[in-house]
Amino acid sequence: MVSEFEFIDRIKSKYALHRIGDDCAVLPKDSETDLLVTADMLVEDIDFRLDWTTPEFLGHKALAVSLSDIAAMGGTPKWAMLTIGIPQTLWNTDFIDRFYAGWFALASDFNVELVGGDVSRVPGKLVIDSIVGGECSKGKAILRSMAKPGDAILVTGSLGGAAAGLKLLESGLRFHDSLPVKQRELILKQLQPRPQLTISNSLNTLGIVTSMIDVSDGLSSDLMHICSASGVGAMIEQHSLPIEPDLAVNLPADCCLNMAINGGEDLGLLLTVDKRNILWLDSLPVTRIGEITANVGTVELVHDGQTTILEPKGYRHF
Amino acid sequence: MVSEFEFIDRIKSKYALHRIGDDCAVLPKDSETDLLVTADMLVEDIDFRLDWTTPEFLGHKALAVSLSDIAAMGGTPKWAMLTIGIPQTLWNTDFIDRFYAGWFALASDFNVELVGGDVSRVPGKLVIDSIVGGECSKGKAILRSMAKPGDAILVTGSLGGAAAGLKLLESGLRFHDSLPVKQRELILKQLQPRPQLTISNSLNTLGIVTSMIDVSDGLSSDLMHICSASGVGAMIEQHSLPIEPDLAVNLPADCCLNMAINGGEDLGLLLTVDKRNILWLDSLPVTRIGEITANVGTVELVHDGQTTILEPKGYRHF
Repeated sequence: MVSEFEFIDRIKSKYALHRIGDDCAVLPKDSETDLLVTADMLVEDIDFRLDWTTPEFLGHKALAVSLSDIAAMGGTPKWAMLTIGIPQTLWNTDFIDRFYAGWFALASDFNVELVGGDVSRVPGKLVIDSIVGGECSKGKAILRSMAKPGDAILVTGSLGGAAAGLKLLESGLRFHDSLPVKQRELILKQLQPRPQLTISNSLNTLGIVTSMIDVSDGLSSDLMHICSASGVGAMIEQHSLPIEPDLAVNLPADCCLNMAINGGEDLGLLLTVDKRNILWLDSLPVTRIGEITANVGTVELVHDGQTTILEPKGYRHF
Repeated sequence: MVSEFEFIDRIKSKYALHRIGDDCAVLPKDSETDLLVTADMLVEDIDFRLDWTTPEFLGHKALAVSLSDIAAMGGTPKWAMLTIGIPQTLWNTDFIDRFYAGWFALASDFNVELVGGDVSRVPGKLVIDSIVGGECSKGKAILRSMAKPGDAILVTGSLGGAAAGLKLLESGLRFHDSLPVKQRELILKQLQPRPQLTISNSLNTLGIVTSMIDVSDGLSSDLMHICSASGVGAMIEQHSLPIEPDLAVNLPADCCLNMAINGGEDLGLLLTVDKRNILWLDSLPVTRIGEITANVGTVELVHDGQTTILEPKGYRHF
């Protein structure tokens, strides 16, 4: 069976779609500005469970994942459309008002204006399509395809928190004010992730980032996307991975590492810069985790002098 | 229970969303051009049935409904995103390739470029969100809100064909080359409707249209949308309605009238112009069906000197 990535590659090639392959499509706007557009579907019981989240958290997350795509291109979000397919049973509750309250709370943080969308009844599960439009200076969108061998690889923030939050939810814990703070913080990373727009803006202003993507599927998969688009390989140093500190409180070490490497949804940014420019990043909360190589299509993990090949094990729909 | 229209009005008011309320949102692009964006969700067993259509027709229709929104604003489509939530069972067939073939066949007719979207697995029914971006000259998008009492009301093409096609499908007929041509044509109006972009372009060039909408929910509902947005009423002359001629072949007269008034999905355009300008429309395939009145929020149907109040009975999700 083909994966969704293979399918998208096939459609790209068959219909010569040159704008597909980054977190957003880049379109000409005016003489100084490009338009960025992105769409993300969230499906009940695939991407979220209604008994694990709240309507407000879900509204927040629906917008956050698309804002994160804008961040991954170094852009600034401007407007959004929200399409929601809602079961009759939910329509008759306060769900939708609370969902929009969560959506608008995040939208107002970044001055994002809701300009359209669609509301439909669905016979099955709740389905959301989150569309965001943004802008960046002309020709300055940061793509996945410009990483060069020798570039340093960096991530913002920490890794594995959202995956650990999911694990806690799977184990039966639910978000509640009375939860121990470290568990509550991990669950919040899963249910209410923050798009990294502020640091993305700083990075784009520096003008030194050669490629960028958000960690939504998982580090191993998202790094492979950069390698495929750039025609390069990568080497990651295990000891340098900024594993979310709260993970070790609840989980064994090998499990923490697995979550940091293969867990997605943190909405951190994964980026590359020429090593000569790395000093410019001193004041930013980024961690250097490895280096781009000429070993095309291969991601290596180095630990105590041993090298293993890292397979992309992030989330796949098909 | 609130309808989806009441819900959207409530959200518009609560969050001061001034760009919502037309077929597309109008956003500034550059000094000469505005950007138009629209999103439309199509849900299996609500908007279509897989055993009534083909994957190619469905791909066509998913794009057609959004192109029709661009037509309703007098715009020109430029790019699209396609989000599809697909059940595992369909993923393993040729469905998705055939769906995209139908989508791209229509896209190429209007030079629409696919620039993004999302592919997701869904546990339930097939769900599609069709997003289209277009353009029009700055400040020239045709809104729903500028109809004035005394304006003539017109429609392009004929009414009721798509609704009759749906009726034939409901009665058990299926599209097939061996069907009598009149039945086949009606079913095609339902399964493969054509967006009215060419005539829309001519109308916008004339610069005389005061309001426009596409007939997607049904004439009675869509005319009410114009009346609500413009703060006016409307009077329709029953004898002037361009009922699709093929309807009378298969259906009694009262049923034909009902379909012409309340059946949607024809993707014709409903528009208003100042009566003094109506001569300019002579060369276009439009039919004058009535007049805008000062009877705010009321749509009247006149037949043989009798006036009845027309309730909006087009399709509603909630």
